Amino acid sequence: MSCPVVSVVAKSGTGKTTLLEKLIDEMKRRGYRVGAIKHDAHSFEIDHEGKDSWRLTHAGADTTVITSPEQTAIIRKNRPEPTLDETADAFFGDVDIILTEGFKRSNRPKIEVHRKERSPTLLCRGEEHDPTLFAVASDEPLEIDVPFFDINDAVGICNLIESRFLK
Amino acid sequence: MSCPVVSVVAKSGTGKTTLLEKLIDEMKRRGYRVGAIKHDAHSFEIDHEGKDSWRLTHAGADTTVITSPEQTAIIRKNRPEPTLDETADAFFGDVDIILTEGFKRSNRPKIEVHRKERSPTLLCRGEEHDPTLFAVASDEPLEIDVPFFDINDAVGICNLIESRFLK
Repeated sequence: MSCPVVSVVAKSGTGKTTLLEKLIDEMKRRGYRVGAIKHDAHSFEIDHEGKDSWRLTHAGADTTVITSPEQTAIIRKNRPEPTLDETADAFFGDVDIILTEGFKRSNRPKIEVHRKERSPTLLCRGEEHDPTLFAVASDEPLEIDVPFFDINDAVGICNLIESRFLK
Repeated sequence: MSCPVVSVVAKSGTGKTTLLEKLIDEMKRRGYRVGAIKHDAHSFEIDHEGKDSWRLTHAGADTTVITSPEQTAIIRKNRPEPTLDETADAFFGDVDIILTEGFKRSNRPKIEVHRKERSPTLLCRGEEHDPTLFAVASDEPLEIDVPFFDINDAVGICNLIESRFLK
């Protein structure tokens, strides 16, 4: 039985990470174990150049793991890039909900973040109608066919996530 | 069937990471898929402050994953710290061999690195006799009951690893 996955999507620069921070904080406050997945279209540098773990990865290790009493970090070379579902199944056996940043082309339920300064239109209600959109967080009122929340209303959005996916 | 695990141990400052870099490079040259595990006794900061993934972890996510076409990174809060065997089983389904830095108290086979400048004695042949020691890499000749290699002889050490654990 796999864990519920909810994706926060938006045009770039709208504020996905800021909303996710608020949702994670609110879900933790409610006692849930929370996973987060960020999709990065480009390559990213997670480790610090010259550190032991960085040296092992750059020597050619296909997977490097660093363990400590507080946390474990894993850096794995891909072949090919895993899908959202594969990632969710592989690394999140012990959380109640997974919140993702991006993955707008997945078929998982989505919240779109909208700011009027950024764009007049929605990603999920543009040329294509995305049926997985189930809420919008916006800084201006919108005529929309799904529940609508103020962009800062983490409590309201978490209430909806809880009732739809966790109860 | 779990993957062979070989640990490189030494007193701190002897050069574990340097030897591991050479072993990883040599094993990759031979066509193996190689995993690496580093044990860090302290807390470590793997991500870069202020980046999106860092923000999700610091907002409270129990596990944060970043995916891209090239690599996947996972940062997981521990409760409690996993053992070497648990780590090897959890994250290395797709490698041929796992080389670790540290974990001197595990019961997996060990190579000890020795440099005369660092210490006159060996970690695995001190007050306790560690039966899992199967090789020593040293910058001076030693009278020792296991195969002995020059500290830079990655080829010789990999030949031994291959014949003992991979063939």
